[in-house]
Amino acid sequence: MESLQSSAEEQQYTFYKDNSWSKKQESTYNKPGVGGFVLVHAGAGYHSESKAKEYKHVCKRACQQNHFQAVDQLKAGALAVEAVAAALVALEDSPFTNAGMGSNINLSGEIECDASIMDGKSLQYGAVGAISGFKNPVLVANRLLSEAQKGKLSAGRIPPCINDFFASFLVGRGAHDWAISHGVPPCPSEKMATKFSLSAYKRNKRKMELAEKMDRGHNLTKKRRQSSGNENCSECLDTVGAVVVDLQGNVAAAVSSGGLAMKHPGRVGQAAHYGCGCWAENARNMNPYSTAVSTSGCGEHLIRTMLARECSAAMQSEDAHQALLEAMQNKFISSPFLASEDRVLGGVIVLRCSRCAEPQPSTNVQGSLVEFLWSHTTESMCVGYMSAQDSKAKTHISRLPPGTVPGQSLAIEGGVCRLTSTAD
Amino acid sequence: MESLQSSAEEQQYTFYKDNSWSKKQESTYNKPGVGGFVLVHAGAGYHSESKAKEYKHVCKRACQQNHFQAVDQLKAGALAVEAVAAALVALEDSPFTNAGMGSNINLSGEIECDASIMDGKSLQYGAVGAISGFKNPVLVANRLLSEAQKGKLSAGRIPPCINDFFASFLVGRGAHDWAISHGVPPCPSEKMATKFSLSAYKRNKRKMELAEKMDRGHNLTKKRRQSSGNENCSECLDTVGAVVVDLQGNVAAAVSSGGLAMKHPGRVGQAAHYGCGCWAENARNMNPYSTAVSTSGCGEHLIRTMLARECSAAMQSEDAHQALLEAMQNKFISSPFLASEDRVLGGVIVLRCSRCAEPQPSTNVQGSLVEFLWSHTTESMCVGYMSAQDSKAKTHISRLPPGTVPGQSLAIEGGVCRLTSTAD
Repeated sequence: MESLQSSAEEQQYTFYKDNSWSKKQESTYNKPGVGGFVLVHAGAGYHSESKAKEYKHVCKRACQQNHFQAVDQLKAGALAVEAVAAALVALEDSPFTNAGMGSNINLSGEIECDASIMDGKSLQYGAVGAISGFKNPVLVANRLLSEAQKGKLSAGRIPPCINDFFASFLVGRGAHDWAISHGVPPCPSEKMATKFSLSAYKRNKRKMELAEKMDRGHNLTKKRRQSSGNENCSECLDTVGAVVVDLQGNVAAAVSSGGLAMKHPGRVGQAAHYGCGCWAENARNMNPYSTAVSTSGCGEHLIRTMLARECSAAMQSEDAHQALLEAMQNKFISSPFLASEDRVLGGVIVLRCSRCAEPQPSTNVQGSLVEFLWSHTTESMCVGYMSAQDSKAKTHISRLPPGTVPGQSLAIEGGVCRLTSTAD
Repeated sequence: MESLQSSAEEQQYTFYKDNSWSKKQESTYNKPGVGGFVLVHAGAGYHSESKAKEYKHVCKRACQQNHFQAVDQLKAGALAVEAVAAALVALEDSPFTNAGMGSNINLSGEIECDASIMDGKSLQYGAVGAISGFKNPVLVANRLLSEAQKGKLSAGRIPPCINDFFASFLVGRGAHDWAISHGVPPCPSEKMATKFSLSAYKRNKRKMELAEKMDRGHNLTKKRRQSSGNENCSECLDTVGAVVVDLQGNVAAAVSSGGLAMKHPGRVGQAAHYGCGCWAENARNMNPYSTAVSTSGCGEHLIRTMLARECSAAMQSEDAHQALLEAMQNKFISSPFLASEDRVLGGVIVLRCSRCAEPQPSTNVQGSLVEFLWSHTTESMCVGYMSAQDSKAKTHISRLPPGTVPGQSLAIEGGVCRLTSTAD
């Protein structure tokens, strides 16, 4: 049995593109308890004051649901990746987020979801794209990941090809059938639609019909172009995700999305793209830090810049805050891959942890410094975070400062949590 | 009108993991003609002597078909990306390759293909995954890319979301329907199956049934595991691809695959994964070289290492040969992402071109140095290459030296082609 002690300090940063920044210090993590830390997001986009309360509640629930499960998972020895999946399930189960229940409805009136999960220890990855009929797509992705981790020749798998080259990414009907055959519980699509998603679909459909009429009348105005752009922000960007570190310093990341409202069937967004939606890498050799990243925002922007992997790689430099600032500025806002875009819209949550060796027989102390940050170019981003010893999660709506331009400016905030444990 | 002159030299390298290497010099490119260069592959895997002739013929055809089309495309000003698509069409049309016609048949007896294409000038990308019913999946990917290049609000596209966030990746039935609605000619799946792919399917099916019987008898032997692994190599790795540079120094890359034989429906391989199957980036700012890469091999290995993008990034250092050697060694064979793999199986074709400015009013000469390389850890790799002024393509089966171990050793070969043109 291990008795665990923990002490932590938290720093909050705000940093804006114009180089004016403020730094606030708090110290809220001085409670003993079990190790581990979770940071979740309910999307980078635009959160009205009325929406903010609901989104904060969702994030809180994701952390706390995760908290209770995390304790069990810690005992079972598979914490980070299972905890991140648990957080995602809570985020997907909320009808307010665009993931799982309440996902956006596509052009054909169907729900097709993307999700992925990555384990920083094994560096294994599982993803599903354009999958229908599951309220928790992350569980299908997680099942793909577990199958890969079981090794090359799991019981019941058969030659000639499947054994050696297991799929990490399944899409569409094939993904659905695979999930069913692997025992993931299905959910009829009609149960996944909500009052909100159905009314949004009907509203969008009416707009499309109107636009088609306008097209026929050759009345393609610039106004239409602008208005469609603005309307997207609030509806389309609330992908959800989470990053987790366990007391051993293992990290994991996951992301899930219902995709764009009225997207073409079969469209796969960043949540299922390797390197784009989430990334997790434990510390090793040249990398002193374990890092985990989950993204949200305009899918094509996050895909073309491979934002999750870029941010993860950047976090190996000493100053976490500066590293993320530079990554968001140079690899996202100013990315040559998005040179033709007026506005580059996205957000990330990032967690990094200084390397934490396995407990040594000669010493009974292990510690880890967890730095957690979020950054976004969208008007706002909703996050929640919690260390496993806390009784409740903190939630926060981060906003760009008034007067700055979404898609051209950025916000960064974050904190530090120090965890130490003593093994008896 | 431009009159174009070209001179070139070719060097061939062979480099093996044990640091013994040889360097041969040839000079075959001293003919005047139009600019541009194409390098194609018909897969990294194992090519028996009997197969070699057919594969070489396919590569030759892909270059030469490309050659004739390339001249027209050069005049139309859209060379690299259109030429690479043309080369892919020829490779897909061959019944011998595992792409388009003659693609591997999946577990359900269906053909599902992956393909992607990237334009180094715009950095735009198009991909399709698990698509059925098209003998040239690359044309669907190319059409997605063109739609993206048309801008955000192409005529006939409608609000609210599709305009601002165009999909670069479509899968399954949705991809099929989109392609039909955009005029890509379909092809019934039964016409895409060949005598060879059908007999392989039947053979694999019999093996599976036998294995299932053995499973039921709890007779999972190590022998079965080994034999299934070896059989894969020859059948599963013949993805096709091409890289092209045009006279303006624009590069493009593409890749296409029928995927693994007996794969699970919905499985998407590296050919549709951004950064994994192909990559192309024109020279800009800090990058002195335009680079293009296309990969082949074990999909999961190529995905997890993002091999196309890694090789492309590596090629910005001075010595192309050394850069590719180190990338293949450090980012592939010794990648921490594949630490659990006994054998790391893949191959790349790489093309890089020193920056070539737009013709200046003050000067009528522009030149480019094209370096082209291939490297593989598989037993063999079939390539073909041709500069636009050549009358016929060169083809080559590159093999690991006798006694080296596939998946643990590598081969690198390549050459240099110098192109100069004079604008009157």
